[in-house]
Amino acid sequence: MSVQSVLIDGRWRASSGRRTFRAVDPATGEELAEEYPISPWEEVEEAINAAARCFRIVRTWPGARFARFLEEYAKGIEQRVDAIVAAAHRETALPVTPRLREAELPRTLSQMRQAAEAAREGSWRRPIIDSRLNIRSQFGPIGPVVVFGPNNFPLAFNSVSGGDFVAAVAAGNPVIAKGHSSHPTTTRLLAEAAQEAAETTEMPPGFVQLIYRTSHEDGCRLVSHRLVGATGYTGSRRAGLVLKDAADRAGKPIYLELSSINPVFVLEGALAERSEQIADEFTASCLLGTGQFCTNPGLVVVRQSELGEQFLAQVRERFESSSPGTLLSAGVREQLASSVRRLVEAGAELVCGGHVLEERRFCFENTLLRVTGERFLENADVLQTEAFGNASLFVFARSVDQMVEIAEILEGNLTGSVYTDTSGTDDDGYDRIVPALRKRVGRLLNDKMPTGVAVTAAMNHGGPYPATGHPHFTAVGIPTAVPRFAMLECYDNVRPSRLPPELQDKNPTGRLWRYIDGTWTLGDVKPVGQGE
Amino acid sequence: MSVQSVLIDGRWRASSGRRTFRAVDPATGEELAEEYPISPWEEVEEAINAAARCFRIVRTWPGARFARFLEEYAKGIEQRVDAIVAAAHRETALPVTPRLREAELPRTLSQMRQAAEAAREGSWRRPIIDSRLNIRSQFGPIGPVVVFGPNNFPLAFNSVSGGDFVAAVAAGNPVIAKGHSSHPTTTRLLAEAAQEAAETTEMPPGFVQLIYRTSHEDGCRLVSHRLVGATGYTGSRRAGLVLKDAADRAGKPIYLELSSINPVFVLEGALAERSEQIADEFTASCLLGTGQFCTNPGLVVVRQSELGEQFLAQVRERFESSSPGTLLSAGVREQLASSVRRLVEAGAELVCGGHVLEERRFCFENTLLRVTGERFLENADVLQTEAFGNASLFVFARSVDQMVEIAEILEGNLTGSVYTDTSGTDDDGYDRIVPALRKRVGRLLNDKMPTGVAVTAAMNHGGPYPATGHPHFTAVGIPTAVPRFAMLECYDNVRPSRLPPELQDKNPTGRLWRYIDGTWTLGDVKPVGQGE
Repeated sequence: MSVQSVLIDGRWRASSGRRTFRAVDPATGEELAEEYPISPWEEVEEAINAAARCFRIVRTWPGARFARFLEEYAKGIEQRVDAIVAAAHRETALPVTPRLREAELPRTLSQMRQAAEAAREGSWRRPIIDSRLNIRSQFGPIGPVVVFGPNNFPLAFNSVSGGDFVAAVAAGNPVIAKGHSSHPTTTRLLAEAAQEAAETTEMPPGFVQLIYRTSHEDGCRLVSHRLVGATGYTGSRRAGLVLKDAADRAGKPIYLELSSINPVFVLEGALAERSEQIADEFTASCLLGTGQFCTNPGLVVVRQSELGEQFLAQVRERFESSSPGTLLSAGVREQLASSVRRLVEAGAELVCGGHVLEERRFCFENTLLRVTGERFLENADVLQTEAFGNASLFVFARSVDQMVEIAEILEGNLTGSVYTDTSGTDDDGYDRIVPALRKRVGRLLNDKMPTGVAVTAAMNHGGPYPATGHPHFTAVGIPTAVPRFAMLECYDNVRPSRLPPELQDKNPTGRLWRYIDGTWTLGDVKPVGQGE
Repeated sequence: MSVQSVLIDGRWRASSGRRTFRAVDPATGEELAEEYPISPWEEVEEAINAAARCFRIVRTWPGARFARFLEEYAKGIEQRVDAIVAAAHRETALPVTPRLREAELPRTLSQMRQAAEAAREGSWRRPIIDSRLNIRSQFGPIGPVVVFGPNNFPLAFNSVSGGDFVAAVAAGNPVIAKGHSSHPTTTRLLAEAAQEAAETTEMPPGFVQLIYRTSHEDGCRLVSHRLVGATGYTGSRRAGLVLKDAADRAGKPIYLELSSINPVFVLEGALAERSEQIADEFTASCLLGTGQFCTNPGLVVVRQSELGEQFLAQVRERFESSSPGTLLSAGVREQLASSVRRLVEAGAELVCGGHVLEERRFCFENTLLRVTGERFLENADVLQTEAFGNASLFVFARSVDQMVEIAEILEGNLTGSVYTDTSGTDDDGYDRIVPALRKRVGRLLNDKMPTGVAVTAAMNHGGPYPATGHPHFTAVGIPTAVPRFAMLECYDNVRPSRLPPELQDKNPTGRLWRYIDGTWTLGDVKPVGQGE
């Protein structure tokens, strides 16, 4: 079988690179048939130049052009559902049903169409008008965006179809997708639909490009290149920080989703009231997708008490009676094993699991660990090691005061959950823990596990470093995730006919939200002397 | 005279440092009497710890508390106007009238009161509510903010009274001010008013702190400290990039305003129509404040033509007949001389000026340089060297095409201006230059020089690197500058009584703008089943 093509400057063509790789079927541990190229720097540079040429053409285009592309692309995916889902299943071992076909694919299509609607409607630009001074501003596209997709969502966060991709396109930017090398065929099938849509909707060559792999060094050159506007990255902390360093030095925005252990505080009253139910919720959340979620609850904080012990026993029973799922790759398995070892070396004890399962498929025992609050506080850095997969660490705190100390010492996380009872006995504890926890997490939950990230404007899939690179931004939620890939553009004394339509006196559609002279409105700028 | 005190943890006290410095009067070149301490690391660390303690107290406080502080502080400044203006004049040689007393001081008070109003009103938090999913989010304070003020605005951008300071406070953060060491007395007098206001309004100790100088190494430790939320910096590119590197590595947001040459394109028709008037406007803008503005027009692009030559001659006449102003410091004078040398070495020719004036005060001849478009394009990196002060470089382009090339090669700038005629002969040129220029600048102007940065929500005082560190944000404009010092905070399934007031169903004041279920409104969340 010949080596698969890369998508550069509007066409599928053979890579100029001579090195190749194959993905592995996680269910068998065997290499898959398709051979994929590793792109050398000159190929990456061609992609950058093509994207820059494309951007010179599209940078003033109206949102409707990008909306049409996204809508056509969504249709193209729908026509290829069987092939895409089959490839994703083969490359990730994630279940076809319900996960891929009934959850992730519809989510992918839904956020793509939401992004199309956002591009057409334009409120993501956040137009602001000072009519008296004739100063007007809004967000505009930032330039070619590089997207690095993660291993754990082959569709909804794929570099060529996921949240970062659709946000970058909605903002009017060409995208250079760096596919995750654990699912290249899924990515290629998606990119074929994307390229077909780009042709149908007459996007210039280079609007969507795809490479599968490149060296770390070339990845750094890519994200820091003069002609690149910004980068979106979801993946491991180690690789992400190398890219961050390169992008930061070049002054290029890079949005990263790096790691998170998503602490869950379960207070005594909640355990007294409904520990079986919470054990069910926790087990479902932690073992879902074999724990391979960025919002997986990897840290549970309870009181050192009979109820706390009973809760752990209830969770342990569930963990032991659930069959371990398949992990995404040998690398995930090794990393999980090494993280668990690291936690044990730092003073955590194994409650159950903790070992690689000797099967052809990649898997690891469902794993629980425990540690005292004292020990956690003494060695908080290491004991916050993310164990990506079906594992979680219970911390037994001596008191609510110690829970507060634990909350204060936490690194930045995407989420933090607090379970309390319904009769109010936990309220005092809640009121003491939450002010600390609030500042450590992007999303605070009550009586709810963190997995399940709704695509809504009110979502925050973000949080303080090292969960992400900047706590101002969310990676999920439309239109809120879109302006990450935008620059603020102000027009000072610019003649009316030269203003972009969104900033002219008349609301271009009557549906565009604008902040005019201190008021959010769908209306027009009022002629002088006709104030309210 | 004894060494002046630092303001740490709520009180003025002797520094523990043994090294000191004195500011210099730029009008005489002589050291001023007051002696100021250089703070050692342990003192900086004390300030960080005090700010962190303070933040633990204020992080859940309502905006009205911060508003009261800012309002009281503004009153305190008004009571000290004479002393503050006199000190600022002595330390910067900026004219008392109109600059300090009639322009910069009123601006400082106005933006402080605007920030107070923003804090009280709360719309800067941008509350977003999805009532169906019960997911709600808004911005909340990010934690202790470090502010480094520049040399050129001793009041309006002062680390303890300027735009970054009031934005950080409006967002609910304690501030550690690092005063600019060229105007320590001005800064101390302002900080005295700030501390008095903090006491009157019962802010916890450590809400406002001031150090005057510390080593570069300790500055880096400060901006990257675990307990610091974010940093605002305005100043030289060199020092800013060192701090940026340290903050970036620690994942700490840092907002920088570094340098900008603010290109002005003057098209042929405009010169034919009104070159004398444009020469007046340009001269006023470039020599105002002796050119020491971040938005100083340091690069002028005209056609190689008789009109272009005539325009330069008109400007030259004005430059030669204006007496050179006083520069802020010996350092500014050296830097200006060295930048002009660098431009000349890169192929620019001196048209007038170009030399240090041998006077006691710090001054430099009003300076114009010229270069061809070809030469500029060949050596664009060096020819974009910022010559901070009363100097500007004219580029003579062969054609409009070459002007477009020049626009495409520009580094990121705060502003870009285009002058065209009123009869439309320049419109084609405008339409070709602006798409390129738009992506290089934060603020695009028509027929207007870039100096004068109005404090309005529609302003963008920002732009692509290296003008700033991130093109998403503006440093001027209220409430738009405020969320830089905030983190996005989402509440998922949080019980109603536990939500912050801004996110509860009822609009807390009826004046708070919120985005509820896709609509901006001053109203309440509608009970279920009562949609529109």
